[in-house]
Amino acid sequence: MLVIGERINGMFRAVRDALQNRDKTVIHKLARSQLKAGANYLDVNVGPAADPPLQAMEWLVTTIREVSKAPLALDSPKVEVIEAGLKLAGSQAMINATDARPTKLEVLMPLAQKYKVPIIGLTMNERGIPGDAAGRAEMALRIVASAMEHDVPTDQIYLDPIILPCSVTQPTCLEVLETIRQCKLLCHPPPKTVIGISNVSQGARHRELINRVYLVMALNAGLDAAIMDPLDTALMDTMITTEMLLIKTIYGDDYLKAGYQRA
Amino acid sequence: MLVIGERINGMFRAVRDALQNRDKTVIHKLARSQLKAGANYLDVNVGPAADPPLQAMEWLVTTIREVSKAPLALDSPKVEVIEAGLKLAGSQAMINATDARPTKLEVLMPLAQKYKVPIIGLTMNERGIPGDAAGRAEMALRIVASAMEHDVPTDQIYLDPIILPCSVTQPTCLEVLETIRQCKLLCHPPPKTVIGISNVSQGARHRELINRVYLVMALNAGLDAAIMDPLDTALMDTMITTEMLLIKTIYGDDYLKAGYQRA
Repeated sequence: MLVIGERINGMFRAVRDALQNRDKTVIHKLARSQLKAGANYLDVNVGPAADPPLQAMEWLVTTIREVSKAPLALDSPKVEVIEAGLKLAGSQAMINATDARPTKLEVLMPLAQKYKVPIIGLTMNERGIPGDAAGRAEMALRIVASAMEHDVPTDQIYLDPIILPCSVTQPTCLEVLETIRQCKLLCHPPPKTVIGISNVSQGARHRELINRVYLVMALNAGLDAAIMDPLDTALMDTMITTEMLLIKTIYGDDYLKAGYQRA
Repeated sequence: MLVIGERINGMFRAVRDALQNRDKTVIHKLARSQLKAGANYLDVNVGPAADPPLQAMEWLVTTIREVSKAPLALDSPKVEVIEAGLKLAGSQAMINATDARPTKLEVLMPLAQKYKVPIIGLTMNERGIPGDAAGRAEMALRIVASAMEHDVPTDQIYLDPIILPCSVTQPTCLEVLETIRQCKLLCHPPPKTVIGISNVSQGARHRELINRVYLVMALNAGLDAAIMDPLDTALMDTMITTEMLLIKTIYGDDYLKAGYQRA
């Protein structure tokens, strides 16, 4: 499973402050520590407060590149902010994210094609997030169809069925698992799937426990990637153990250590 | 999910010693602590060393009954030992276990019918444990057919697909999950399923982590009961959280506490 480290995000106070003060050490440290902990990608999100966001993205990508060549998930609701990141990160990147709106697809799919990068597709459109798996799968199909039109290989699409907090809308937990299963049937080669794991526990008690259990459930359903906190060691241990019990990796007494080394 | 507390078993040194010395305090404590921790049933197994085993079972059941009326899973390879327990425990019991051999089924199913108690059925016969889910499901079907012949309600059958150590036979982990799913399709009302969770991690490193992750996976597949250690709080927390995320229970900020109270 791909681990997309979530920590370089302007929603976190430390990153917001680092952006304001152009404090590189905070960003260097977050990049290094997440990669050392097993992240395969680093998510890069300037957050809602960064002004102007385009320059903030450029600064973040340039700053990360001073210490790492790791692929970056360029995370913004604004196309121009994502493209500013792509220009600096090149093919070592991922677009995070389009959704199923034609206005987004028609701009972001060509960008994924131009830079030859994977793209996350949120299963929602201008009417919002469908309540059930069937509605989410319909959004997923629109995203896949757009990928085909724009010559983006379908296995470069990471469909995100948008997990919502169990404390707010508990039924979504099962609908998202079902969507993950259905996404695999949409085309060949099948698209990949991703979720932002910590969303499931927003506002809930026992957040880390809920994140761990839901990650096992999602991996069981076929999940390919997660935007998550690689510094949460118990979560990483759980992921590696699930992959072993799903026989994606071989058991050996050092399977945990091997799981971290593979990352 | 039914929690069958595994700790009163002569395989554990403390219980073996208590049996030898007829030391009631150890057994009282194990009964009370497991029930307080959330066990629904107490497994009662005299272990291989107890001599004579029938008197050992009688003493264990009598001793437990001094402090609790909780239902007991009478666990022995010997029919007469199970029946000795049944005579004392009555309908507040479960037979652990028959397998798919006609010689076992023809004796134990009538016993389940006579005492009106659930019965665990191990999916194996005189040729051993089948390697795959199809073979295990065939054994399960023989057990269900025998239940029907002997007027034991099929929802009183707890089919145990026999999880084996991932360190020895890793593919079994997936075959058992598939068997759990298939068992539900065998008849109506569907039989229930049970596993002895700690078997999955026998001889492995990170045993408690592996137990927790596999329990989430098995619950996802539809597991109804587990023979497990209720004193492993992290395992119990994981079980209660899985049931919440599977929407078998409602999320509330006190869902963990409520999960223990329900048990």
